[in-house]
Amino acid sequence: MNSVQIIPLGGVGEIGKNCTVIRQDDDIVVIDCGLSFPNEEMLGVDIVIPDFTYLVENKSKIRGVFLTHAHEDHVGALPYFLQQIKCPIYASEFTHAIIRQKLDERVDLREVQLLTFKPGDIIPAGSMSVEPVRVTHSIPETCSMAIRTKHGIILMTADFKFDFTPVDSRLTNMARFGELGKEGVVALLSDSTNVERPGWSPSEMKVSEGLRKVFTAAGGRVLLTTFASNIHRMQQVYDVAAECGRKVAVVGRRMEQNLEICTRLGYLKIPKGVRINLDEMRQYQPKDLAILTTGSQGEPMSALVQMSKDEYSRLRVIPGDTLIYSARPIPGNEAAIWRTVNRLFRQGANVIYDSPTPIHVSGHAYQEELKMMINLTRPYYIAPVHGEPRHQHLYLEIARNMGYPDHRLFTMQDGVPLEIQETAASMGEQVHCGRVLVDSAGTPGVSDDVLRDRNNVARDGLVVVTIAVDPERGEIVGDPILQARAFHAAEGILDQARDVLWDALKNLDSNDIRDVDRLRHEVADIVKKFIQKKAQLRPIILPTILEV
Amino acid sequence: MNSVQIIPLGGVGEIGKNCTVIRQDDDIVVIDCGLSFPNEEMLGVDIVIPDFTYLVENKSKIRGVFLTHAHEDHVGALPYFLQQIKCPIYASEFTHAIIRQKLDERVDLREVQLLTFKPGDIIPAGSMSVEPVRVTHSIPETCSMAIRTKHGIILMTADFKFDFTPVDSRLTNMARFGELGKEGVVALLSDSTNVERPGWSPSEMKVSEGLRKVFTAAGGRVLLTTFASNIHRMQQVYDVAAECGRKVAVVGRRMEQNLEICTRLGYLKIPKGVRINLDEMRQYQPKDLAILTTGSQGEPMSALVQMSKDEYSRLRVIPGDTLIYSARPIPGNEAAIWRTVNRLFRQGANVIYDSPTPIHVSGHAYQEELKMMINLTRPYYIAPVHGEPRHQHLYLEIARNMGYPDHRLFTMQDGVPLEIQETAASMGEQVHCGRVLVDSAGTPGVSDDVLRDRNNVARDGLVVVTIAVDPERGEIVGDPILQARAFHAAEGILDQARDVLWDALKNLDSNDIRDVDRLRHEVADIVKKFIQKKAQLRPIILPTILEV
Repeated sequence: MNSVQIIPLGGVGEIGKNCTVIRQDDDIVVIDCGLSFPNEEMLGVDIVIPDFTYLVENKSKIRGVFLTHAHEDHVGALPYFLQQIKCPIYASEFTHAIIRQKLDERVDLREVQLLTFKPGDIIPAGSMSVEPVRVTHSIPETCSMAIRTKHGIILMTADFKFDFTPVDSRLTNMARFGELGKEGVVALLSDSTNVERPGWSPSEMKVSEGLRKVFTAAGGRVLLTTFASNIHRMQQVYDVAAECGRKVAVVGRRMEQNLEICTRLGYLKIPKGVRINLDEMRQYQPKDLAILTTGSQGEPMSALVQMSKDEYSRLRVIPGDTLIYSARPIPGNEAAIWRTVNRLFRQGANVIYDSPTPIHVSGHAYQEELKMMINLTRPYYIAPVHGEPRHQHLYLEIARNMGYPDHRLFTMQDGVPLEIQETAASMGEQVHCGRVLVDSAGTPGVSDDVLRDRNNVARDGLVVVTIAVDPERGEIVGDPILQARAFHAAEGILDQARDVLWDALKNLDSNDIRDVDRLRHEVADIVKKFIQKKAQLRPIILPTILEV
Repeated sequence: MNSVQIIPLGGVGEIGKNCTVIRQDDDIVVIDCGLSFPNEEMLGVDIVIPDFTYLVENKSKIRGVFLTHAHEDHVGALPYFLQQIKCPIYASEFTHAIIRQKLDERVDLREVQLLTFKPGDIIPAGSMSVEPVRVTHSIPETCSMAIRTKHGIILMTADFKFDFTPVDSRLTNMARFGELGKEGVVALLSDSTNVERPGWSPSEMKVSEGLRKVFTAAGGRVLLTTFASNIHRMQQVYDVAAECGRKVAVVGRRMEQNLEICTRLGYLKIPKGVRINLDEMRQYQPKDLAILTTGSQGEPMSALVQMSKDEYSRLRVIPGDTLIYSARPIPGNEAAIWRTVNRLFRQGANVIYDSPTPIHVSGHAYQEELKMMINLTRPYYIAPVHGEPRHQHLYLEIARNMGYPDHRLFTMQDGVPLEIQETAASMGEQVHCGRVLVDSAGTPGVSDDVLRDRNNVARDGLVVVTIAVDPERGEIVGDPILQARAFHAAEGILDQARDVLWDALKNLDSNDIRDVDRLRHEVADIVKKFIQKKAQLRPIILPTILEV
C-alpha cells in the first residue's frame, strides 16, 4: 500500500469530537481527541466520544496523539482514550496545564506520557513528522499541525482565525504557512465552522471596546459570563476593570481553576490590586465591582444559572446588576440560556447579549480568512473539516470559486479514509467508526436499546404487570398487580386493564399457564392493546411472572 | 370595584399561548386562545395550553372570545377551551375558515357558536365593545382589538407589522389607529417579539425578489418550505413560478388543506396552469418544477423531514434539487431543523437558508414600527405582551426613551391583573393561572410528578424489584426478581444487587415481612443504595410485593 490515509474518527460532517488519524504504512499519528455534546434525543447522555476501536486494533502503530488546543471538542475524550490505549500525548505548555487537571480526575497521571512542544518543533512520528504552527484562536497556544508524509505535507489547520491584534500579541505564523505551501502541501484540512459568515472576523481585541462601554455606563455591578477556557476574554475583563476602577471576583469552579493555573504560568497578567475574592466584595460599592462567572451555556449546576434561580448562596443578583453575555450559545443550549437570561431580567438585572460594539467575537475564521489560508498554503487537495454538511458544502463552493476543480475537492465523512496516492487521491473503504455515548456517571456505552426505552418511557411512561403462578399446578396465584410510572392517563385505567387481564387469564388452561414465556407475552399484549385502545398511549409494558 | 382589569392567562413573559381577559364588572371579553410548545424538559408533552380555571369559574360573565388571527399561538387552545366553556367565538372570515377544520377534529361544531366579523365592526360585549382594526402580519386578516371600556380604549395590537406593500394589498388601517388615539387609548398592549431588531421590518413583498433569483438560477427543481399558514408566501411562490415557467405541486397535509380552503375562498389566486398535483410532476423536466412543502420546523412526521430521510414514498430528493428554507426556526427546533438541512445536503440538494436578498421576512414589527404604533395611538399606559422578560425589558426602555415615565409603564405577568382605575393603574392580586400540559394523545393534565418520573427514567432508567411473600407465615416465597429498563450499567450489576438484597432479606424476621409497606420501602432502599454506590446512577426503583 503506497497511499497515505487520512481517517477522521470524528469531527467531519459534524461539529465536535474532533479526532483524525493520519496513517502511513505502519505508522499512525492522531490529531486531537475531542468530545461532543448529546442532541435532545440522547436522553441521559452526558457527552459523546469517538469509537476508538480502529485505534485499539492498531495500538502498536500509534506514534502519538497531537493536541491542537485545549478546547473540549479537541481534548475532552482523552481520558477515555487513555483508558484503552497508551501512547505519547503531545501538547503545548498551556494545553498541557489545562488537560492535566482534567485527566487527573479520571486517570492515573503517572501512567500517562505527556510531552510538551513549542510551535516550530519538528516532532518525529515514525516515518512521518509533525510540526505545530502557531495560529490565533479563542484559547492560548492553538496550533495547526503540518504532518510530513511521503506524498507531501498534510496540513490540519485546527480551529483558527487571522487575528492581527491578539490579546497575547502572539500572531499567527503566516510566513511559515507560506513556506509550507512552497515546500508542498498535498492536502489542506481546514476549519469550516464559520464559512457562512462573509468578510473577516473581528479581532478579539475589539471586545475591550465593548466591555469599556458597559463598564463605564453601568451604575451597579457588572457580571460577565464566558467560557471558562477563554483566557483572553478574562484578561480583557481584568484590564478594562483596572482602567475603570473596578475590582474583579471570580465564581465557578472551572473558571477559578483556570484562573489559578493561568496566573501561575503567566498566561494571565492581572493588574495589581484588581483581583479580589468573593468575601472581599462587601467592602466595595456595587459600581466598583465586576464578577467573572461560569454558566454561559445555561448549565444547570453553574454559578450563573443558580444565581438566576436565587439558589446560589455565595452570591445573589441585586437590582441594578448588569450581566454581559460574552459567549455564543452552543447549538442545543439556546433554550436553557434564554431561560437564564429571562430569570435575570425578572430579578432586576440588565442583560446585555447583543451590542453594536461587540461584547463577544468568534474564534473561527470567516470566509475571507478561509480563502487566505488556501492562498498561503496552496494545497493540492482540499477537504473542509470541523463542519456539518452545510459548512462543507459552502466551503467547497468557495474553493471552486478560487479555481479548484472538483477532483481536488473532497467532502469527507467520519470513518471513510481519504487515500492520497502519488498522483491521485480518492475515498477508501469505511473503517470501524462511530459514536460512544457516555452517561451521567461517566460510563461509556449507552446503547441504542437503552435510548429507545428512554424515549418511549419519556413519551408515554411504563406499566409493570406482576403475576404469580404456581407452575406445578398451572394456576395463577393471587391477583395481578398493575403499577405505572411516568404514565399519564385517565383515572381508573389501570383498574380497568387489570379487570380485562383477569378475565382473559381465567380462560387459560393450566398448560397455558405453565408456559411462562408465552404467558409473559400474552399478559403484555393484553395490557398493551387495552391501554392503546382506551388512552391512545403506548407505554412500555413490563410483565413479571413470579413462580411460587 | 370600579377598575377595569386586564388579566393575561398566557402570552406575557413568554412567547406563546396568548390569552388575555378584559374584565369590566360582570362582563368578560377574551382576546385569543392560543397554545405554546413544550420545552425540552417537558418530556412526552405535545402542546401547552393556558389553565382556564379562572374562565371556568366566571363562565357566565364571558361575552365572547375574539380571535386576532389564525396562528396556533392565538387559536390553538380553542378546542380545549370549548370542551369546558360555551360562548360566542368571533373571528374574521379567514380565521374562521382555518379554525373550522381544526375544531372539527376535536369538538362537535354544531355546538360551537362561531361568528364572523369584519375590521371596523363594533361588536357589543356586555358593557364593553370590541372593534377589530386591520393590521398586516404573516397571515391574512390579522386584527388589532380595540376594547372600549368605561376608562377608555384598551388596545391589543396582536401580532403586527407595518407593511406598506403587503401581498394582498390590504394595508394596516393606520388612520383608524390615529382616530382611536384621539378618542383615548388608556392602555396599549403591544407585540414586543422583535424589539431586539433595530429599524423597520422588510416588506413581505421583498421575498418575491429573493425567490425570483433562486427560481431563475436553479437548474433543477426548487422546493420551498414555510409555515402551512403563510398564505402570502405561498401566493408569491405561485406568482414567481408562473413568471419563471415552473409548475407548482404541494406536499404535506396541512398545506394541502390550507391550499384548498384559500383557493376556494379567494385568499389565494393561483395563476392559470401553474398548479399541478404530485403525480403530474413526472410529465415535466426538473427545471420546470417547484414544490411547496411542510416541515419548516423539522417536524418528524412532515413531508420534508421524511424526504430528507428518504422515507417519503410520494416524493424523493434528487441531486440538483434546491431547497429554499423560507421560515424562522421556532426556538427549540433548531437542532431538528439543522439535522434536516444537513441530510438534504448529503442527498445532493442545495439548501438556501440565508441570502443577501431575503427569502424570508418576519411578520412582527421592528423597533421603529413599535414606536410608530405608540406614536399613532398615544396610549396613557403601556404594557408589552407577546414577549419574554428580555423583550418586555427592551420594549419599556424604548418607551422610556419616548418620554414615558415609569408609573405609566408595566411589566405584566401571566395571571396578575393590571387594574385600570379612573385616574391610576396598578397591579392587582394574582388570579388562578398556569399551564396545562397536553400529551401526545391530546389528553390535557400531564402532572409534575409524571414529568419528574419521565426525566428521572430518561436520565438513569428504572429497576423493578419483585418479591412474593406469604403474609400469614411471614416468609419470602421464591427468589426476588430484578428487571431494568432504560438502564445503562456494567453487566452483572442486577445480579449483584439481587444477591445483596437476598442476604438482607434473610436477616428479616417474620414480623418484618408481614409489614408489607415497610418491606416495600426497605427493598427499594437496599437496591437503590447498592446501585448508587456501585454505578453512580439513580434509577427509579419500583418495588412490587406480591402476597401469595
